[in-house]
Amino acid sequence: MVWLIGAGPGSEDLLTLRAQRLLQDADVIVHDQLVPDVVVQMARRDAEQIAVGKAKGHHSFSQAQINTLLVRLASEGKRVARLKSGDPMVFGRAGEEIAAFRKAGIAYQVVPGVSAALAAAADTATPVTLRKVSSGFIMATAHGAEDDELQHWALLAGAGMTLGLYMGKSIAAQVAARLVAHGASETLPVGIVVNAGRANRTLYSGALGALASNQLDFADGPAVILVGEAVAEGDWAEAAQMSASSFKVA
Amino acid sequence: MVWLIGAGPGSEDLLTLRAQRLLQDADVIVHDQLVPDVVVQMARRDAEQIAVGKAKGHHSFSQAQINTLLVRLASEGKRVARLKSGDPMVFGRAGEEIAAFRKAGIAYQVVPGVSAALAAAADTATPVTLRKVSSGFIMATAHGAEDDELQHWALLAGAGMTLGLYMGKSIAAQVAARLVAHGASETLPVGIVVNAGRANRTLYSGALGALASNQLDFADGPAVILVGEAVAEGDWAEAAQMSASSFKVA
Repeated sequence: MVWLIGAGPGSEDLLTLRAQRLLQDADVIVHDQLVPDVVVQMARRDAEQIAVGKAKGHHSFSQAQINTLLVRLASEGKRVARLKSGDPMVFGRAGEEIAAFRKAGIAYQVVPGVSAALAAAADTATPVTLRKVSSGFIMATAHGAEDDELQHWALLAGAGMTLGLYMGKSIAAQVAARLVAHGASETLPVGIVVNAGRANRTLYSGALGALASNQLDFADGPAVILVGEAVAEGDWAEAAQMSASSFKVA
Repeated sequence: MVWLIGAGPGSEDLLTLRAQRLLQDADVIVHDQLVPDVVVQMARRDAEQIAVGKAKGHHSFSQAQINTLLVRLASEGKRVARLKSGDPMVFGRAGEEIAAFRKAGIAYQVVPGVSAALAAAADTATPVTLRKVSSGFIMATAHGAEDDELQHWALLAGAGMTLGLYMGKSIAAQVAARLVAHGASETLPVGIVVNAGRANRTLYSGALGALASNQLDFADGPAVILVGEAVAEGDWAEAAQMSASSFKVA
């Protein structure tokens, strides 16, 4: 049996009660490097712990190796907790692991978690949906985005929807410029949360045009970029400003 | 002080540890009718409990009345837990309550939760993002969607992105027909989860065209509609089929 567990954004108290219970039941914890120690330590003390995945751009295990490892551990009769940052079904590559479990006939269960973009919204009291302002929320990744997708994002952001972009810190300026090139307004509010949901979070705010032209020196850690009119309704008073043209704080 | 707390999808063990702790600390719990009793009962036994909001189409309190109530309770020095279904910042009207707190000078804090669409994905092991299939996830509401928005959703779903539509059960057929009219394929896989994240969940699966032409008799409870190629990668084996043209289960 494998439990695919959302660890949430990285604070030990943003785990769900179900995740906490299953971490206590598991014989072995296979966790992404992104999951902080404080969360991994919620597991049973004598459980085996295996860190896999990406750490600062370096892949310690390929996805195929992770799939093989999980199948082997479960085949040995171990109760395996596969602990993933945020929610397993959003940018967690859970789909590939589930396909491997099905092929090997291994039982699995998915435990949802708090995704980083919603932690960023909570940290900054940003209503990513808001009557008469934002009719929806798009969770997407800035990496590898195609031009036709960016065009629709730009148009939807222009129509009021909020974008939540994952994993885009290093290419934030480039993505902002592409959104503007596809018709998004340079004045659209942008907020960036590094280490969302954690005590050491860092905030940045500004307008899309400012982000496109600036090369900011962001804090270390995973980032979420929020784009859209609703961002200006959030509380970004403590944010570092991207430029003098930043949006007015609500 | 008001805590705006995401209650998650409605199972008591899909609350976060932080939400559980704050519910134990609060003097008064103001909760949506959508939040099941089993979750509200996680509060301190002697805490006052006030149910507000919509119940089966009937508004017991207007949003303005809820804002006034919360401000009054907090002004009396009470620790108020405002418990909202799912995540407070996604279709929770938290933005309007936060604006009222700011105006009244009341401190607030937002605690994120597991949103219903991600519970639906977990229930059905549907990877709403998936390499080479779905590059992102759109959380939107079927109610009041404008034609230009629907057009972009249809195009993004055609490009592989997954749609998660909230609160659309009664108008599901109509929204499916509008998506098809805006260019979405009739063969796009659709999965519907009523009571996502709860023991009594009910699943339905089919193709967008089948949903558009059928008038299904859905189970009672809140629903999430998932649309997109990634839906076919989920486990919908227990789902009621919308028609013989349903997508092939992975």
